[in-house]
Amino acid sequence: MNKHIKIKKPKLPRMPRIPKIKSAHKMLKNDVPGTLTYTGSKEQKHVSVELIEYTPHDYKIEQGNDISIAFDKQKPGEISWININGLAHTDQIEKLGQHYDLHPLILEDIVDTNQRPKIDEYPNYLFVVFKMLYFNEDGAFMNEHISLVLGENYLITFQEADGDVFDSLRMRIANAKGRVRNAGADYLMFAIMDAVVDHYFTLIETMSDRIETLEDILFSNQAEQDITQDIQDLKREVLRLRKAVFPFREVVNRLEKIDSQLIDERTVTYIRDLYDHVVQVSDSIDIYREMTWGLMDMYMTTISNRMNEVMKVLTIISSIFIPLTFMAGIYGMNFEYIPELNLRYGYFYLWGLMFIIFFLLLYYFKRKKWL
Amino acid sequence: MNKHIKIKKPKLPRMPRIPKIKSAHKMLKNDVPGTLTYTGSKEQKHVSVELIEYTPHDYKIEQGNDISIAFDKQKPGEISWININGLAHTDQIEKLGQHYDLHPLILEDIVDTNQRPKIDEYPNYLFVVFKMLYFNEDGAFMNEHISLVLGENYLITFQEADGDVFDSLRMRIANAKGRVRNAGADYLMFAIMDAVVDHYFTLIETMSDRIETLEDILFSNQAEQDITQDIQDLKREVLRLRKAVFPFREVVNRLEKIDSQLIDERTVTYIRDLYDHVVQVSDSIDIYREMTWGLMDMYMTTISNRMNEVMKVLTIISSIFIPLTFMAGIYGMNFEYIPELNLRYGYFYLWGLMFIIFFLLLYYFKRKKWL
Amino acid sequence: MNKHIKIKKPKLPRMPRIPKIKSAHKMLKNDVPGTLTYTGSKEQKHVSVELIEYTPHDYKIEQGNDISIAFDKQKPGEISWININGLAHTDQIEKLGQHYDLHPLILEDIVDTNQRPKIDEYPNYLFVVFKMLYFNEDGAFMNEHISLVLGENYLITFQEADGDVFDSLRMRIANAKGRVRNAGADYLMFAIMDAVVDHYFTLIETMSDRIETLEDILFSNQAEQDITQDIQDLKREVLRLRKAVFPFREVVNRLEKIDSQLIDERTVTYIRDLYDHVVQVSDSIDIYREMTWGLMDMYMTTISNRMNEVMKVLTIISSIFIPLTFMAGIYGMNFEYIPELNLRYGYFYLWGLMFIIFFLLLYYFKRKKWL
Amino acid sequence: MNKHIKIKKPKLPRMPRIPKIKSAHKMLKNDVPGTLTYTGSKEQKHVSVELIEYTPHDYKIEQGNDISIAFDKQKPGEISWININGLAHTDQIEKLGQHYDLHPLILEDIVDTNQRPKIDEYPNYLFVVFKMLYFNEDGAFMNEHISLVLGENYLITFQEADGDVFDSLRMRIANAKGRVRNAGADYLMFAIMDAVVDHYFTLIETMSDRIETLEDILFSNQAEQDITQDIQDLKREVLRLRKAVFPFREVVNRLEKIDSQLIDERTVTYIRDLYDHVVQVSDSIDIYREMTWGLMDMYMTTISNRMNEVMKVLTIISSIFIPLTFMAGIYGMNFEYIPELNLRYGYFYLWGLMFIIFFLLLYYFKRKKWL
Amino acid sequence: MNKHIKIKKPKLPRMPRIPKIKSAHKMLKNDVPGTLTYTGSKEQKHVSVELIEYTPHDYKIEQGNDISIAFDKQKPGEISWININGLAHTDQIEKLGQHYDLHPLILEDIVDTNQRPKIDEYPNYLFVVFKMLYFNEDGAFMNEHISLVLGENYLITFQEADGDVFDSLRMRIANAKGRVRNAGADYLMFAIMDAVVDHYFTLIETMSDRIETLEDILFSNQAEQDITQDIQDLKREVLRLRKAVFPFREVVNRLEKIDSQLIDERTVTYIRDLYDHVVQVSDSIDIYREMTWGLMDMYMTTISNRMNEVMKVLTIISSIFIPLTFMAGIYGMNFEYIPELNLRYGYFYLWGLMFIIFFLLLYYFKRKKWL
Repeated sequence: MNKHIKIKKPKLPRMPRIPKIKSAHKMLKNDVPGTLTYTGSKEQKHVSVELIEYTPHDYKIEQGNDISIAFDKQKPGEISWININGLAHTDQIEKLGQHYDLHPLILEDIVDTNQRPKIDEYPNYLFVVFKMLYFNEDGAFMNEHISLVLGENYLITFQEADGDVFDSLRMRIANAKGRVRNAGADYLMFAIMDAVVDHYFTLIETMSDRIETLEDILFSNQAEQDITQDIQDLKREVLRLRKAVFPFREVVNRLEKIDSQLIDERTVTYIRDLYDHVVQVSDSIDIYREMTWGLMDMYMTTISNRMNEVMKVLTIISSIFIPLTFMAGIYGMNFEYIPELNLRYGYFYLWGLMFIIFFLLLYYFKRKKWL
Repeated sequence: MNKHIKIKKPKLPRMPRIPKIKSAHKMLKNDVPGTLTYTGSKEQKHVSVELIEYTPHDYKIEQGNDISIAFDKQKPGEISWININGLAHTDQIEKLGQHYDLHPLILEDIVDTNQRPKIDEYPNYLFVVFKMLYFNEDGAFMNEHISLVLGENYLITFQEADGDVFDSLRMRIANAKGRVRNAGADYLMFAIMDAVVDHYFTLIETMSDRIETLEDILFSNQAEQDITQDIQDLKREVLRLRKAVFPFREVVNRLEKIDSQLIDERTVTYIRDLYDHVVQVSDSIDIYREMTWGLMDMYMTTISNRMNEVMKVLTIISSIFIPLTFMAGIYGMNFEYIPELNLRYGYFYLWGLMFIIFFLLLYYFKRKKWL
Repeated sequence: MNKHIKIKKPKLPRMPRIPKIKSAHKMLKNDVPGTLTYTGSKEQKHVSVELIEYTPHDYKIEQGNDISIAFDKQKPGEISWININGLAHTDQIEKLGQHYDLHPLILEDIVDTNQRPKIDEYPNYLFVVFKMLYFNEDGAFMNEHISLVLGENYLITFQEADGDVFDSLRMRIANAKGRVRNAGADYLMFAIMDAVVDHYFTLIETMSDRIETLEDILFSNQAEQDITQDIQDLKREVLRLRKAVFPFREVVNRLEKIDSQLIDERTVTYIRDLYDHVVQVSDSIDIYREMTWGLMDMYMTTISNRMNEVMKVLTIISSIFIPLTFMAGIYGMNFEYIPELNLRYGYFYLWGLMFIIFFLLLYYFKRKKWL
Repeated sequence: MNKHIKIKKPKLPRMPRIPKIKSAHKMLKNDVPGTLTYTGSKEQKHVSVELIEYTPHDYKIEQGNDISIAFDKQKPGEISWININGLAHTDQIEKLGQHYDLHPLILEDIVDTNQRPKIDEYPNYLFVVFKMLYFNEDGAFMNEHISLVLGENYLITFQEADGDVFDSLRMRIANAKGRVRNAGADYLMFAIMDAVVDHYFTLIETMSDRIETLEDILFSNQAEQDITQDIQDLKREVLRLRKAVFPFREVVNRLEKIDSQLIDERTVTYIRDLYDHVVQVSDSIDIYREMTWGLMDMYMTTISNRMNEVMKVLTIISSIFIPLTFMAGIYGMNFEYIPELNLRYGYFYLWGLMFIIFFLLLYYFKRKKWL
Repeated sequence: MNKHIKIKKPKLPRMPRIPKIKSAHKMLKNDVPGTLTYTGSKEQKHVSVELIEYTPHDYKIEQGNDISIAFDKQKPGEISWININGLAHTDQIEKLGQHYDLHPLILEDIVDTNQRPKIDEYPNYLFVVFKMLYFNEDGAFMNEHISLVLGENYLITFQEADGDVFDSLRMRIANAKGRVRNAGADYLMFAIMDAVVDHYFTLIETMSDRIETLEDILFSNQAEQDITQDIQDLKREVLRLRKAVFPFREVVNRLEKIDSQLIDERTVTYIRDLYDHVVQVSDSIDIYREMTWGLMDMYMTTISNRMNEVMKVLTIISSIFIPLTFMAGIYGMNFEYIPELNLRYGYFYLWGLMFIIFFLLLYYFKRKKWL
């Protein structure tokens, strides 16, 4: 039976069980507030630090494994983007925090991967947390915890591990393509958030694909296999996406309305546009959520329909042969005097009668549309 | 079995699968903000441009395939309506944007068919996005992305492809019928939005028809076929309509409350009336939504009822003939001494007993209301 | 089977299918805003106009089929109530509109039966729209579109057709009973709305009756018939009632808070009381809504319970007679040597064994509480 | 079968059908606003009036059947509590209203038992309506409509019938126990409302008991009986409790925030505490509501589980004996040449084969965990 | 059958029935407001009092069973933490209340374990109530009612019984680890609330574990046992957790916004962080709530699937053997002239035919994917 299932289910991308959420907060518990502990699971050998400095005319990139390369003296008019991958190296993050005079709670939030998306205003900088969601090479649904510190002429970004969706952005800076080289660090922050939101759209496409695959399975009556687990997994992913996107929407909304000298008025127009996109994402999530919930109903209907079909086969065969068997039983009796038994063609008369009953029952089931 | 289904279902308009939403955002991803890319699927060979200029006394129409005809010098007191079909020709739209000094983000939103309904205020113009929904000739549920720019004495409308619901409006302008020729560009904008809302009502009628058709199928016990897919499709259409109408309601609401010199106070009364209509549409959508969800329950009940009927037939036939067959079996036994077998009319006595049992069971099922 | 259903269902008032909503907006579509078109279905031969003029000491009533009788010159201190039945005669309504200088959009809303309840303030008058719901003589759920214009010392009411719930109010005016003759047109407006709200209570009673009738059918296990359609109709009626009452609640709420010289401060106390009543109605609607939704669950349970019972009968009969038939089959075999067959009382021994098995099975089913 | 049900259900307190709500508003309809009509069903022969007057040092109680004893001249510094039972005697209430100069609408609300909980501020007094809910001696869920008028140094309470939960309060006043004798009429009002809220807690306990009883029935697999009606009744009671408590919460909330010279600042602290309690009650109601809704699901599961069990018994017996009967049938055939029949021990060989098949099938069902 | 269940369910932690909520408010009813009555069930022999006094440089701890040790004279600059376990000893609490001049309502709330989380501002102190939830050694879900009074330089905490999650905090104070010794009583309050919120995370992990265990049971088709009760218990625990956490969220939110000289501005930053954590907890609760509700659906599906399987077995066996038995019955008839019976190899021909029918039916069921 299992073999058939495999064959029937070629289009459904494998949905691995989601890594348990429970282990998430394991290290925070009973800890002293103010102590940095990375709560994620992506251990990286070295912290990897990347410093990009640019003016409208100039561009410089530096990479390494020590935080100190981020402490380069900034030239006037220059924008610095410091990108740090690898949150497990809390000592490096503390060093950076001291250099840029970041509040201890910010440092905690940077390494606490359970921190939900939020925005905090501090006198000299803005602090933003959000989530990058992606499917890893095994198809598992992964969480990347991203934090931003936006200061005067600099932007620091923190990620859990190497590898991100900012490559096209780096190339735009390198090639002075688009508006980014001519705008400030606030526009750079917008561009990063924009790339993340664009990535949310691809996730939504994947969910849409999965829902359609499951619907196709259900509609094509191939649904031999138990797809309850797939549906439940999908529900869970939609809920996790929702948990990441809805607070992020609030973050962007507040960013649009914030009154900070760090954000240029021209950038606000772009942020408003970003907000439109996030709202679009969250609208779609709610639609997919309802559709996913509806899948369960559809599956139940499919099961009921199939049971109905099984019942019909049983009823038709039983209803036809049980009366006929009864008739055969009658003439298998050993009574001394059964007049029909002595008829020359009694046997053939009985067959005739049986065929008549057979076809009457067939007609009855046909009329009831069971056939 | 399939043939019968076709016959049973004459009134249900065919509901083709909705074109996948997922491909919608495909081009935007990782793109440079500020670059125009049409994200829809309606490719048109030429952009088609239409310029209507009118005063209370005068009326002029010009059509062509190049944006430059829209750059006609406006006479004082004249209202210009520039209608542009074909968003794939982004170069033409950029040219127009430069001429009218439109913000780059506006141009992006014009060609991004995923942009949800919204209203943006700029110093010299208002920018409005909304959706025209319609069933195409194949019965598929289509999206038309419409954008408006309302300036001093001019209105620019953008559509994805030729063909719209504004013909009656054009005729009213041509024939100087109604208020439109005597009012400003703001009234023209209202008239366009009003035509779109009126069209929403026809969509709602279609949905109502579909729901009733499905209910009729369910109530008439014709529901042999699996209408799960029809119900799911309906759900999806209601959700898409909702997604288009609810943000549009907010747009109209804000338009009513906006404090702009571009909108005449007399037009505000009309916009308030328009708002009432949109609220009406969205109320109806929510009612149809609940009804659609209720259909699934009704379908489940129908399935259960039918299974019940199948069960009853099986139970009646089995319960009658299994005991009778047992009796026949008794007298088919080969015991040496079975006194009944030697009775002269034993066979007929048995038939008599069988008929009594038969009618008792019939009476029992009758009293249980299974017959 | 149908005959039985009729007999089983004596107390359920017949619920005819609701007239389709879809035809509602048929005429408005693509029409010029500002053109009057009656969108309802109640065509009346003549418009019927009624003019009631009263002071604390005086009272005069005039009736006719032409709007001009409403243009009577008002004496100082006199309150006029102009009641117009028959919205299909749009020319008469336009004439009235000109005489009282009503905004074109008001006239449109008066004849648009799809207009949801609302209140509009104009400099010289208030305009209120609401719904009178009733069951007509066929038991169908009908909609009466009512509009009010409250001006200085006059009140104009518009209804679709003759016949209303204001008779007791007319008598109170005629007989100078209660407060109405001594108060202004604003109190008259309150009295009319109060009569409508009181009528809502009778509707709620009818719904309550229907829910109880359906519950009684379900509980008394009489639910042979398929009451899905009744439940679905009930759902629909509750939704329609909700659609009429909830916006009306907002109307009354705003009326209470309005700052208009047309409404006396003493009347505000009465409107606040009216608001309490409307809130009460809408609370009840929400309770009945939940109860109606619950009916479907109960019906499903009833079906399942009945199927369970059918299954039990089948199982009991089959489980008893199939083994016994097997035993009879054994001794019907033609083996040369079956020792039991040669026993003198083998046949009776077998019957004994069969009875033992029969009673053991009965006992088993009894213990399982299937009997 | 019925007898068994009675025996199985000893712990479930009898839940009588709720008296119909529909008759509630019967008298109000089309009535003149301003006319007093008692809309409840508790007719009492006489109105019973109770006057309690107290100072910190003094205490006096007077009882009778005429309202005039409430018109006693108040001494300075004295607090009067006038408690009136029996709302059907509207003439007495009107007399009281004239003496204390109460607004006609207040008098209407006092005798309208359908009035939902509310608070109205008048220049010289506060008017509060709320509900006392209780189970009467028959276990029916009853509504007691309570109104309060709080004036300068006096409090008037109105109830439908004799018997209340204020006895402990009367004793506290009589015995000068607690704060009540030293505080004003506002504290007395608080104490009355506090007693009512405390009583809500006992109702919630009863609901909790019923839910647990039903759950126990469901879990103990005793659920032979159809408990749908019990669940539906419970749902209805929760909804009615909700309808009484949620508006009352708003009343207490507004009372806490009210700016009235009638309420002492020290009492506000107590009212805030009362508000906490009401919120607690309404939180619990919502939890019990969800639990009650969940009961229906559980019941459905129980039914399905039982059907499953029935099916298994049928399947096991049929699957075992139908093949065996077939084998017996084979050797009951009358073919001229059936070699097995002539075997000396053919009959025993067959029995052996049958036992093997029997045990193989048993093993199969065991492995499937159906046994 | 029971034995198997035990074996199948090794990973499911035992969830004992929740202690009844109903008994909770038993003592408050009809009580005089202002009288202290402990409403919980944790009776402790002695009250246990703990006094911790510290400055940045100094640290002192004192423990005992009499409240008087808390009345130690405070030195300037010293922070006192008074922790009291055992709320049943209301006389001790009253003594403390008199010493610190606490409002009688505060004392009531301290001993009323039903009091929901709240915050009250008094002129000289803040009063906070919240809940500590934990699983006791028997796995039962327990409630610990915690109250805080934050005054100038002192913090008093009240708990129902010994044993808490503050040990790590005590050690931090003792060892001068972290910020706590250098900050005020407000930071101490924050640290306590932080420890409680951290503990909520462990509860959420436990819930997550239980949901996964139940899902695993459902997915592994081990779900022989009836897990309805487990699911219902889980629902109830989620609801109780929700009831504790959601008002607590409001408490922290108000604490962040409060304008009190008792809370240092630097502490507010920490409280804002705490608020983030509580929001995270409540988000997770809502996700687990939806998942728990979904479990019931999954269970229903599992039951239906299993019934389907039972049905298939029955249908396959019946459909194969009933027709074959009929054929055997035919040739068991005793007609004088049945030509087939006289065929030399008739018996073997019949067997051949039966095998053909057998394999055709097998093929049919295979194609229908029932095998």
